[in-house]
Amino acid sequence: MTDAAYLPLNRHRLIAPGPVEVSPETLLAMALPQMHHRAPEGRAKFIRVRERLSELLGDPYQAVIVTGSGTAAFEGALVSSVPAGAKVVNASAGKFSERWADMAERLGYTVTRVEKPWGELLDADHIAAACQDAYALTITHSETSTGALHDLEAIAQAAKAVNPDLLIIADCVTSFGVSELRPAAWGIDIVVSGSQKGTATPPGLGYVFFSPQAETRLIKDTPKGFYLDLQRELTGQKKGDTPQTPAINLVYALDAALDRLLSVPREVLWHEKALQASALVAAGTALGAPSWAARTSPAVAVLTPPQPLGGKAVAEQLARMNQRALPGQAPHEDTVFRISTLGYADRYDALSIAGILEDAFRALGVPFESGVAVQAAWKAIQQG
Amino acid sequence: MTDAAYLPLNRHRLIAPGPVEVSPETLLAMALPQMHHRAPEGRAKFIRVRERLSELLGDPYQAVIVTGSGTAAFEGALVSSVPAGAKVVNASAGKFSERWADMAERLGYTVTRVEKPWGELLDADHIAAACQDAYALTITHSETSTGALHDLEAIAQAAKAVNPDLLIIADCVTSFGVSELRPAAWGIDIVVSGSQKGTATPPGLGYVFFSPQAETRLIKDTPKGFYLDLQRELTGQKKGDTPQTPAINLVYALDAALDRLLSVPREVLWHEKALQASALVAAGTALGAPSWAARTSPAVAVLTPPQPLGGKAVAEQLARMNQRALPGQAPHEDTVFRISTLGYADRYDALSIAGILEDAFRALGVPFESGVAVQAAWKAIQQG
Repeated sequence: MTDAAYLPLNRHRLIAPGPVEVSPETLLAMALPQMHHRAPEGRAKFIRVRERLSELLGDPYQAVIVTGSGTAAFEGALVSSVPAGAKVVNASAGKFSERWADMAERLGYTVTRVEKPWGELLDADHIAAACQDAYALTITHSETSTGALHDLEAIAQAAKAVNPDLLIIADCVTSFGVSELRPAAWGIDIVVSGSQKGTATPPGLGYVFFSPQAETRLIKDTPKGFYLDLQRELTGQKKGDTPQTPAINLVYALDAALDRLLSVPREVLWHEKALQASALVAAGTALGAPSWAARTSPAVAVLTPPQPLGGKAVAEQLARMNQRALPGQAPHEDTVFRISTLGYADRYDALSIAGILEDAFRALGVPFESGVAVQAAWKAIQQG
Repeated sequence: MTDAAYLPLNRHRLIAPGPVEVSPETLLAMALPQMHHRAPEGRAKFIRVRERLSELLGDPYQAVIVTGSGTAAFEGALVSSVPAGAKVVNASAGKFSERWADMAERLGYTVTRVEKPWGELLDADHIAAACQDAYALTITHSETSTGALHDLEAIAQAAKAVNPDLLIIADCVTSFGVSELRPAAWGIDIVVSGSQKGTATPPGLGYVFFSPQAETRLIKDTPKGFYLDLQRELTGQKKGDTPQTPAINLVYALDAALDRLLSVPREVLWHEKALQASALVAAGTALGAPSWAARTSPAVAVLTPPQPLGGKAVAEQLARMNQRALPGQAPHEDTVFRISTLGYADRYDALSIAGILEDAFRALGVPFESGVAVQAAWKAIQQG
């Protein structure tokens, strides 16, 4: 019997940082008899889901559900809140945070980039200094390309100290529902996320949350967006209306997914996902593949494989084992590989992944003592 | 944060020895537009699935698919093959094997019970001695109530040596597709199984496989069965016809499930499930809960918890953790608990279960060194 003979029998797992594993209840909700968003039930569902999203956020921010990806939601937040040509400071240290600068430039804003190399942490004072005369700061909380969880609280407080009117738009795509996030207390005006991450719902919905103050700053009839005019969306959505047709099946699915997420206090969700990520990082570290970032996101473990092994080879080996992980993102495709239990997965799944990593690394010829990753992961879970 | 706070976040797992976890592909096949068993596609599907079941069995036995449980299939095998009033020897050492004696008595056969206490192994010579003047021997291969894998090969060969005309009807409900089973070489005439076990399909189908010789001994118009007249069924099913309406959606599901099972040689399936069960037994043993049976079935780990802990308390604790296991069966409900990776589950799921057992036993106040079960399970997997 060859070593590889068992591989077709491996259960397929999605261990990438989005799309993520989705619960059967969530998938079933998608398959209910086709709902209509203008029917009373559809409108009631929409209102309910908006309210429950805000409940998961934990602050009385107004939620807008965008039919689109997290990028669409971010663009909507930007063009609906920041006047044409205004100065936008963008803090970046990875792929996603760089995207917001590119987006703002394309849309005609005056962009100041405050950059750190990928994998490093953003510096609060550095960012704050650039924000003195800015209208808005765009920043990423959990940087999915590097696995860094930036200190959004410290950065927001430093920036607001320098410029109290600064509008802070935070990309919380992979931190919402996963990592400690207290937008009102921290001074985050607008929070952006998407369905296929911490809310463990299929892709297709973006979320934008506006603080009461940010809501007053929404631009009427923004010249930079029609579909993504969130002022109009918010006005309609408060009544259960959407100006355009929403992905209503996904809204029903999200409601089902929220049942599980709202069954515990947010602190338990945050703790549980931090525990799982710490188990993944511990497993990687035991195999000579430590975390790229120092302050690691609970959403994703971004691990640097031991030389000469590249991240692409690890992701490919995992794919051969029916485990869908990810390599790094350009231009660092091969620097790292990325694994996650972001969605419908628990601490025991994180333990499974430690075993999977051992088998993957062995297949790739990496020397290690059998059991080290499994033991390290379990110890991290037990200590959590 | 209380210890129990994370429990609602645990993923639901079916870790019982049937019904079992079913793959998404299998579930999706159930939800295809309603098929019709008399349509050409339905008939072709039926014929294909019969052939593929025989391929999984590995011998050119004729398969009959019964819409019913494994018990229905067993009754069909019995009444369709054994003449009214004939002598039937039943070998038993657990709940399921006892059932076949009760069934045969109810149906008017002259039954000789050859019994061993639950948890012990059947003795080939003991059984063979009783078979001298018998028409049939009914026996259970993998006894799901005790976790014993009886030595079907040795028993069949001993019994056939004494009585070459003996018709051996084997309950392979939890061994088919899971444990080494070579009916032609071993001298098993009729093999019985069901969908919700090794074939990882929802419940509702029973399988009966007839050797070429057993087929010639089928009784025409058995007086003990109409629905379960398998002679009539086999005649029809060879052409893709069923005398009654079959659970055709389940037949489609089974075809999807067979894709995975037939993607590897049977020996790999057997090895993989033995490996998983050995990991479960190793985890239990490390926690002071060894296997009840000496020769353990790859289908199920039946573990005896340390005194004064009972099997029901363990199963209840696992249920609180969203893990559906089973206690023992009457009258030994509390003697053991039963866990399994029989269905769509892999070696990494077995590792998860080891972690789950540690957390369950800790919650129940059993003392042990953290990590012992996880390490023992992983070692068993790596040594496999």
